[in-house]
Amino acid sequence: MNSYGNTSPTGHQPLKWLGDRLIILDQTKLPSEEIYIETTDWQAVAEAIKQLRVRGAPAIGVAGAYGVALGALSASTEDKEAFLAKVNGIIDAIAATRPTARNLFFALERMRAAIEENGSPGQLTERLIEEAVAVHHQEVEATTQIGLYGSEIVKDGWTVLTHCNTGPLAAPGFGTALGVIIMAYRQGKHISVYADETRPLLQGARLTTWELQKAGVPVTLITDNMAGHFMKAGRIQCVITGADRIAANGDSANKIGT
Amino acid sequence: MNSYGNTSPTGHQPLKWLGDRLIILDQTKLPSEEIYIETTDWQAVAEAIKQLRVRGAPAIGVAGAYGVALGALSASTEDKEAFLAKVNGIIDAIAATRPTARNLFFALERMRAAIEENGSPGQLTERLIEEAVAVHHQEVEATTQIGLYGSEIVKDGWTVLTHCNTGPLAAPGFGTALGVIIMAYRQGKHISVYADETRPLLQGARLTTWELQKAGVPVTLITDNMAGHFMKAGRIQCVITGADRIAANGDSANKIGT
Repeated sequence: MNSYGNTSPTGHQPLKWLGDRLIILDQTKLPSEEIYIETTDWQAVAEAIKQLRVRGAPAIGVAGAYGVALGALSASTEDKEAFLAKVNGIIDAIAATRPTARNLFFALERMRAAIEENGSPGQLTERLIEEAVAVHHQEVEATTQIGLYGSEIVKDGWTVLTHCNTGPLAAPGFGTALGVIIMAYRQGKHISVYADETRPLLQGARLTTWELQKAGVPVTLITDNMAGHFMKAGRIQCVITGADRIAANGDSANKIGT
Repeated sequence: MNSYGNTSPTGHQPLKWLGDRLIILDQTKLPSEEIYIETTDWQAVAEAIKQLRVRGAPAIGVAGAYGVALGALSASTEDKEAFLAKVNGIIDAIAATRPTARNLFFALERMRAAIEENGSPGQLTERLIEEAVAVHHQEVEATTQIGLYGSEIVKDGWTVLTHCNTGPLAAPGFGTALGVIIMAYRQGKHISVYADETRPLLQGARLTTWELQKAGVPVTLITDNMAGHFMKAGRIQCVITGADRIAANGDSANKIGT
């Protein structure tokens, strides 16, 4: 597969793979500027994760995998031991960028497993690219399924409240919580959304409203402290948010204010 | 009384009367700049209310009363009918600056009653100055009493949460809700405060933290959506906020998020 990441319900993706280079949408500049970083440098990818230019656990995992692939492409050695040492060093460096992003470690473990297979440095590099694209593809598939399952509970005419950003920018494809909303809207349900600002970093105000507008979904931005009022007034039928972790008993942990 | 408004537990007052002129602390510039407007022009006072340079219902009421006094001082007529027409016009103009500030109407009704007494324009002007200072003085007294009564419920060692701004800037003297906190601190109780940012205008972040720091009270700024977390974690013993209205049954209305 030469490239990946061209489709999204908003027409925008946080990451696009062009066979030998990665395009990163700089999320720190949104919504006022839409700036794309094109790079073949794994260190630029690590820096983008550190600086939150790529954010959202699934997107960080995908970026990390592509970072390893770019590192392997630039390794320029036929000595297998040197190649493995180099790629393992890159995996360690990328793992250190965001200690809380569980998806990043899952993705990097898959990359680490890929280079334990047989093959020359050239073959293993191809294998790493294939694996990174597979990680990306599976995330897109997963969010599509989340959207399809979740949208069943959203009824025609409902107003949905969401907190923080969980759209395609954070989770390549449809997004997680926002994917449910976008999918329900695409099924022709007349829904509208209240998006919390999400202090202190305003991911809701900056990113969620931007993504919903791109997807055509009616959205109203509210301050975090208005959510209780609108719920009390009966103007919200459903709350859909992301989760950093979900325990077996259904308890979940997410952004402050959830 | 030649001047009024020099004392405050924070060393700062929103308004200071110097006998023939008013000093207004420009609250829109806080906390980065501490700029005072000195004026003898009633229209500058009306403009300051409109532009939120003076804010907080009690402070707006006091500013409105001083505005009428300044208008009378500049009336320069010995013709009583012309004087009354001019002052009544000024009262109407100031009443139109902030349709929701109940205290402003109370203060202006007092000013309107004062010019219905006997006397020459010169005597009535003195009467209006006296009445404006009396409005100011009563607000200071009221906040001192609120502080003294309210502080009885605040126990040593407590952490108090507050929302929006209710300090001396809003309510000349000690402030209302913040007056309770400041008074308890002055009584030697070891208390600390969580102040909500108070979106969308950040009165908590800009003004409440500034006032508490000036008063020496330990304060931590939190986003509005952290309040629930800290309450759940048992780290807040008491919530004290202001109220725009309090009904006879104890129901109250206040800033969104309260």
